[in-house]
Amino acid sequence: MPFARPPSTLGENTLLPARPLKIAIVGAGAVGAYYGCVLARAGHDVHFLLRSDYAFVREHGYQVRTGQEDFRLFPAKVARSSAGIGPCDLVIIALKTTANAAFPELLPPLDDAGRTLFLTLQNGLGNVEALARLFPVRRLAAGLCFVCINRTAPGVIESYIQGRVQMAGVGPGAQGLARELAGLFAGAGIACRAMDSLDEVLWKKLCWNIPFNGLAIAAGGIATDKIAASPALMKLAHALMEELRAAALAHGIAIPDAFIVSQLNSLQGMGPYKPSSLVDYLGRRPVEVDSIWGEPLRRGQARGLPMSRLEVLHALLCHLVGDKC
Amino acid sequence: MPFARPPSTLGENTLLPARPLKIAIVGAGAVGAYYGCVLARAGHDVHFLLRSDYAFVREHGYQVRTGQEDFRLFPAKVARSSAGIGPCDLVIIALKTTANAAFPELLPPLDDAGRTLFLTLQNGLGNVEALARLFPVRRLAAGLCFVCINRTAPGVIESYIQGRVQMAGVGPGAQGLARELAGLFAGAGIACRAMDSLDEVLWKKLCWNIPFNGLAIAAGGIATDKIAASPALMKLAHALMEELRAAALAHGIAIPDAFIVSQLNSLQGMGPYKPSSLVDYLGRRPVEVDSIWGEPLRRGQARGLPMSRLEVLHALLCHLVGDKC
Repeated sequence: MPFARPPSTLGENTLLPARPLKIAIVGAGAVGAYYGCVLARAGHDVHFLLRSDYAFVREHGYQVRTGQEDFRLFPAKVARSSAGIGPCDLVIIALKTTANAAFPELLPPLDDAGRTLFLTLQNGLGNVEALARLFPVRRLAAGLCFVCINRTAPGVIESYIQGRVQMAGVGPGAQGLARELAGLFAGAGIACRAMDSLDEVLWKKLCWNIPFNGLAIAAGGIATDKIAASPALMKLAHALMEELRAAALAHGIAIPDAFIVSQLNSLQGMGPYKPSSLVDYLGRRPVEVDSIWGEPLRRGQARGLPMSRLEVLHALLCHLVGDKC
Repeated sequence: MPFARPPSTLGENTLLPARPLKIAIVGAGAVGAYYGCVLARAGHDVHFLLRSDYAFVREHGYQVRTGQEDFRLFPAKVARSSAGIGPCDLVIIALKTTANAAFPELLPPLDDAGRTLFLTLQNGLGNVEALARLFPVRRLAAGLCFVCINRTAPGVIESYIQGRVQMAGVGPGAQGLARELAGLFAGAGIACRAMDSLDEVLWKKLCWNIPFNGLAIAAGGIATDKIAASPALMKLAHALMEELRAAALAHGIAIPDAFIVSQLNSLQGMGPYKPSSLVDYLGRRPVEVDSIWGEPLRRGQARGLPMSRLEVLHALLCHLVGDKC
């Protein structure tokens, strides 16, 4: 398939070169593998940094299944270490946030003399801050993926709904960077929008993750269809969203009613989807408790908001997943 | 052992006759069996209404183990139906509240022409109201058992701490009734106090049951030592107690600081105690969700209190135990 990125409309002053990009996918779980495969299919030179799936994907490549189409990426370029990939134009970070302490080891070998862009697709709050300890903010961006993607077997990625990505830059020139990255994703066929405010995107994403990832675990390990079928849990999900909305407002972000309604309605048609945190919990892998529940709780409480429901959910999740908190 | 009840100090006008009493224990789980055995040892004519343990207890009696002493009640008078016991002086109800719908079937055959007293030792709110649909309130009382009693095997009852009972009457003459019942229990060697206010006793008991029975289940099925070792869970337990305290105050009951502190400290020295609700949950038996969490939540919310933390805990417990709520 030919290189499919539409020509930039931004003129000369762009951060990404107007050619197929060398892209590293750091943390090739379901989300990272999915976007890596789609970008590779669009003609980019995508390298996957892998641990557990390394041998399988090297031999078999990736199989991507969506409602609309299936496709295979073979061969897939895989590496066991960042040094084995080397400097890139773009690094897409889809690590579990529980592994963020590995940034200083994983990311610098991918940096091309201060030119490389770093895009985190991770959940929750605190990820951009962790990147900003290593790289200047003008090269940082965050993408929020409103998707239902699961890795159903080694090398097999399934995407259940027509997902979309909201892209936001971090530092000066954030809006231009967001537009460039949105163009890159859109050019690969991914519904993607550039947003003006990173904080708005982050808090909005939490409106889904905090209630639904959380209740899926705390209510006994249930998929989204069971949550949707329970008036008590949906009422609680709504109340959690309202707590978050107040915290967002205290940080200058106004979340409209319609957005809350859309998040509550989003479970319809999703079927028995297991949020990523539930998949991790059931698989006895680390759960992103601190970035999804802990950091938003601290930020809300720091503005004097009680966040009572979130406090309960956070304390229970810590114990259920075995974290110290 | 001779009849050990001290002479009443109430003069002629007492509700209980001054002789060994015929007592029925309805719901001979751990708590019912324990008090039945202790009252039988003190010389009363105690009949246990049993289902699952019937054959075992008929053959082997009861074995009671406490830190201080062990004793055996053999033979134990057991029955499979209320008609097999017949009219009593006193009926002690220690059924799970999830079985309260059986009151109209179980209790009338034990009533002696309007003379019998009914004492509920059950958890939570709503039990006295269920009894009051069948019998006049002047014959009703409630005892709150601050104890750690488990049935560790068929016919084997273990009591882990020096427990105590707070006794309160319901209708007119409540205080006299409470004193008579407290005297009965004290005469059998049970630390027991007559209380002026039933509501005070009920709300105070919830200050333990709501956080500790609830968190034991919702935090993953953990005993009290694990709760006590977690600052986050203890903070949450305290916050739940404060929500209850506000609800109690809205019902005219002032719960002092010292009581809250005593409840928080009560886990010290209790060891890995499994609250009764956790034992039921782990054994896949019905859990008393509505009387312990549901009814207090409704009563608090009816007075305009949000009870946010209790609301979360209640919704999660409903799902964990499989209740519709």
